[in-house]
Amino acid sequence: MLTDLKEKVWKANLDLVKYDLVTLTWGNVSGINREKGLVAIKPSGMSYEAMKPEDIVIVDLSGKVVEGKLQPSSDTPTHLELYKAFREISGVTHTHSEFAAMFAQAYREIPCLGTTHADLFKGDIPLTRMMKKEEVENDYEKNTGKVIIERFARLNPLEMPAVLVAGHSSFSWGKSPDEAVKNSLILEKVAKMALGTLCLNPECDNFPDYLLNKHYQRKHGPKAYYGQKK
Amino acid sequence: MLTDLKEKVWKANLDLVKYDLVTLTWGNVSGINREKGLVAIKPSGMSYEAMKPEDIVIVDLSGKVVEGKLQPSSDTPTHLELYKAFREISGVTHTHSEFAAMFAQAYREIPCLGTTHADLFKGDIPLTRMMKKEEVENDYEKNTGKVIIERFARLNPLEMPAVLVAGHSSFSWGKSPDEAVKNSLILEKVAKMALGTLCLNPECDNFPDYLLNKHYQRKHGPKAYYGQKK
Amino acid sequence: MLTDLKEKVWKANLDLVKYDLVTLTWGNVSGINREKGLVAIKPSGMSYEAMKPEDIVIVDLSGKVVEGKLQPSSDTPTHLELYKAFREISGVTHTHSEFAAMFAQAYREIPCLGTTHADLFKGDIPLTRMMKKEEVENDYEKNTGKVIIERFARLNPLEMPAVLVAGHSSFSWGKSPDEAVKNSLILEKVAKMALGTLCLNPECDNFPDYLLNKHYQRKHGPKAYYGQKK
Amino acid sequence: MLTDLKEKVWKANLDLVKYDLVTLTWGNVSGINREKGLVAIKPSGMSYEAMKPEDIVIVDLSGKVVEGKLQPSSDTPTHLELYKAFREISGVTHTHSEFAAMFAQAYREIPCLGTTHADLFKGDIPLTRMMKKEEVENDYEKNTGKVIIERFARLNPLEMPAVLVAGHSSFSWGKSPDEAVKNSLILEKVAKMALGTLCLNPECDNFPDYLLNKHYQRKHGPKAYYGQKK
Repeated sequence: MLTDLKEKVWKANLDLVKYDLVTLTWGNVSGINREKGLVAIKPSGMSYEAMKPEDIVIVDLSGKVVEGKLQPSSDTPTHLELYKAFREISGVTHTHSEFAAMFAQAYREIPCLGTTHADLFKGDIPLTRMMKKEEVENDYEKNTGKVIIERFARLNPLEMPAVLVAGHSSFSWGKSPDEAVKNSLILEKVAKMALGTLCLNPECDNFPDYLLNKHYQRKHGPKAYYGQKK
Repeated sequence: MLTDLKEKVWKANLDLVKYDLVTLTWGNVSGINREKGLVAIKPSGMSYEAMKPEDIVIVDLSGKVVEGKLQPSSDTPTHLELYKAFREISGVTHTHSEFAAMFAQAYREIPCLGTTHADLFKGDIPLTRMMKKEEVENDYEKNTGKVIIERFARLNPLEMPAVLVAGHSSFSWGKSPDEAVKNSLILEKVAKMALGTLCLNPECDNFPDYLLNKHYQRKHGPKAYYGQKK
Repeated sequence: MLTDLKEKVWKANLDLVKYDLVTLTWGNVSGINREKGLVAIKPSGMSYEAMKPEDIVIVDLSGKVVEGKLQPSSDTPTHLELYKAFREISGVTHTHSEFAAMFAQAYREIPCLGTTHADLFKGDIPLTRMMKKEEVENDYEKNTGKVIIERFARLNPLEMPAVLVAGHSSFSWGKSPDEAVKNSLILEKVAKMALGTLCLNPECDNFPDYLLNKHYQRKHGPKAYYGQKK
Repeated sequence: MLTDLKEKVWKANLDLVKYDLVTLTWGNVSGINREKGLVAIKPSGMSYEAMKPEDIVIVDLSGKVVEGKLQPSSDTPTHLELYKAFREISGVTHTHSEFAAMFAQAYREIPCLGTTHADLFKGDIPLTRMMKKEEVENDYEKNTGKVIIERFARLNPLEMPAVLVAGHSSFSWGKSPDEAVKNSLILEKVAKMALGTLCLNPECDNFPDYLLNKHYQRKHGPKAYYGQKK
C-alpha cells in the first residue's frame, strides 16, 4: 500500500546523504497521506545504503504500525505530533546537521541576517524551551513534538518551516517529503552563514524587515515571481 | 540565435556547481553579445542538473525576452544594470557563496590581507550601502544594480571585479561568463582566508600597498609576466 | 591464522579513509581474539590504498609478532594496554582526526552539550593528564596506554568509548573493530559541533543530566528502543 | 631529457589537486637533478587537468630555460634560491593552501601545539619578515627566496621543511618532489588544527619540548622506529 509515498519517502531519506546532512543513521524523513491519515517513515537505525523502498514503515496517526516488518524511527511520535498540529504540511525531516545543531546546543535562535535566510524563513529560526525532566522521562519523543508546537503558538509553520530543539538539533517540514529535506538543507546553510557572520560581527542585528519581507514574498508571497510558472 | 553564447553561459552556470559555489538553485551567470546588445542568462529557479544549453534565455538590455520559453533569472535586472554601467565586462555572476555572504551579512568589506587577494583584486572588496525601503519595494533587482554602481563611482570594475551587497551576498564579473565564475570562486576563497586571518589577528591591517600592487600588476598590469604568452 | 579477524581489521582501517578521519597514514585500528589472546593491527606507516588483508600483523598481548612480515603500528603497545585493562572491548582505533585533536591540543575535555553527544557518550569526553618526561622518554606508547587507564579509574570504558590524550589526539574503542571506528567518527562530529557551540556560547554549560541519561539509555540502556530488534 | 624527473614533478603537481591544496592554478612543485644542476618545474598559469609530463619546463640554476616550450612558473626564482641555499633538498612546493595562508596573512607563526605537528616539524613553523618595498619591486621572486633563507639562519631545513612568507602563503620542501607535496599537506592540516586549538584556548602554549622531541625523533631521528625498515 502507498507504494508511491513509500518511494518518495525512501528517496527523500537518501537525499539526506546526498546533501551531507547526516552521519551514520542520524536523520529521518516521513511523508503523510492526509486522506488516509497514514504516515510513511524511515525504519529505526537502518543505514541509508541498505534501505529499500519496501523497508519504509507505514504507521497511523496514533503510531500503530499498519504495514512493514521493521520498527519505525524512534522519532516517529514527534513526526506524528507535527502532522496533527500543522495540518498544511505533508513531509517532516529530522537531522543532527552540524551547524543547525550548534545553535540548538548553544541555546540560540538563528537570527535572520541576510537574504539567503529570508528567501525561505519569515524571521529568526525559533528555538524551543529546554524540556523538563518529566517531559523527557515519559513520552519523550511525543513531548518533543509538543514543545515545538508550544513554540509555534504564534508562528505559521508554512512561513517558518523549521525549528531548533534546545540542546538537541533540528526538525523541518514542508508540503512534501522532498520539500522538507530541501528546507533542512537551507536551514543548515543559513546556520553556517550565521555562525560566520556572528564571528565577524557579534552584534550584527540590523537586517531590515522590509528586505526580509521582500525576499520572502518574491519567493513565497501571492505575487511571487521567482522560478517558472506552474 | 547566439548558440555559442548560450553554450558558454550554460557551461559557466554548471561551473558554479563544480566549484561548490551554489546550493540548490542559488546562483546564476549571464553573458552579453555587445554588438547585438543581447544578454544570455540562466532561467529562474531551474536546477543545474536539468538545464540544457537551449534553456538559456536571451533578453535585450531593457529586459524583454527575445528568445526562450522560460522566465529569465529574477536577478536579470541587476545583471542588465551592470552591463549598461560597466562597458568593459561581458559576463556577470551572482551567487550566495558562503564566506562572501558572511562578510555581506556582517556589513564588512573584505580587507586585502594577502597576495591571494591582491592577485585579482586591487584593494578591499567593496560593500554597498544597505538599500532603502523604497529601493527594495519598487524595482528591487534594478536598484540592486544601482547601489552597486553607486559604490563603484571611484572604482574601476576591471580592477575590482566583485562586490558585496549589504545583507545579501555577492556579484562578480569579467570579460567572459567563464571569467566571471572564476572571479566568484576567487572571491569565495579570499573571503574564507580573510575570516580565518581575522580570527587569528582581529586587528590585522598592515598588508603593504607595494606588495598589493606588485601582485596585482604581475598578473594584470601592462608588464604582466604570470602565465603563458597569448 | 585469524583470517576473519584480519579481514575485519583491514576493512575497519579502510573505513578511516571512507569517513575522512585520517590524513596520509595517521591512524590505525586493531581487533582482538580474546580466546587466543591475539591482536590484529595495521602495519606501521603503510598507506591504506596499498594495504591488503594479509598485511595485517598479528601480535600477542606482550607485543611479540606472531604472524606477518611487516612491523606492527608503532602505537601497538597503547592498544595492548587498553585491551588488558578494558576486558569488555574487542576493537581499538587511534586517529589524529582534526576536531578531536583540537580539544586534545587545547587541553580541554569535550563537554556534553547536546543529544548527539549523549547518544553515545555518558558524559564529557575525558582528557588524560600531560605525560611526564620520563613517561615519554621510556616506553612512551605503553605509558600512553597507562595514562588513559589512569584517567578511567572511575569511568566505564563501555559507557565512555573514547579519550583525548593531552597534546596528542584521540583513541576510541568498542566491541569490534568496526564499532571502534564508528565511535571515532562520532567523537569527531561531536568535537566539531562542540567547537561551534562554544564559539556561539562560550559559557554553554547547562545540558541537563536527565536529557543526557535519556538519550544514552534509549540507545544503550537495558530498555533501549532505538534501532531494530536483534 | 630528464624524463623521469619530469614525470615525478608532473605527478607531484597533480597531487596538489588530489590533496585539495590548490584552487585554479595557485600552486607549483619542482624537483632538482643535483648532478646536472637542472630543475624541472610546472609551467606558469597552466591548469593541472591540461598539463602533461612533457609540459614540465627544465631550467638551470640561473633560471635559464634549457628545455620546454612553455614559460616556467613565475615563482621559479624562489625555488632556485631554495635549492642553492638548502643543499639537502630535492623538491620544493609552493601553494596558497588556505589554513597555512591564514597564519601567513595574520603574521603569526604556527606554534607547535601537539604531536601531529611534532611528527614532522621540529618546532614552530617560522614566518619570514615582511619584505621591503625595494625587495618587492625588483627581483621579487628571488628576494622571496632570500627572506626565507634569512629566516633559516639558525634553522635546519630538513628539520623544518616549511615556511610561511608574511602576507603571502607557504613554501615547503623535501628530499623529493613527492615529499615536498606531502609536507605541504601536513603543514595545511597542522595549520587547521592550530587555528581550532587557538579558538578553544587562545593562550595555549605549553606543549612540552620532551614530547615534541620524542615524536620528531621516533619518525626522523637516528633511532626512528615508525614505519617499515627500508
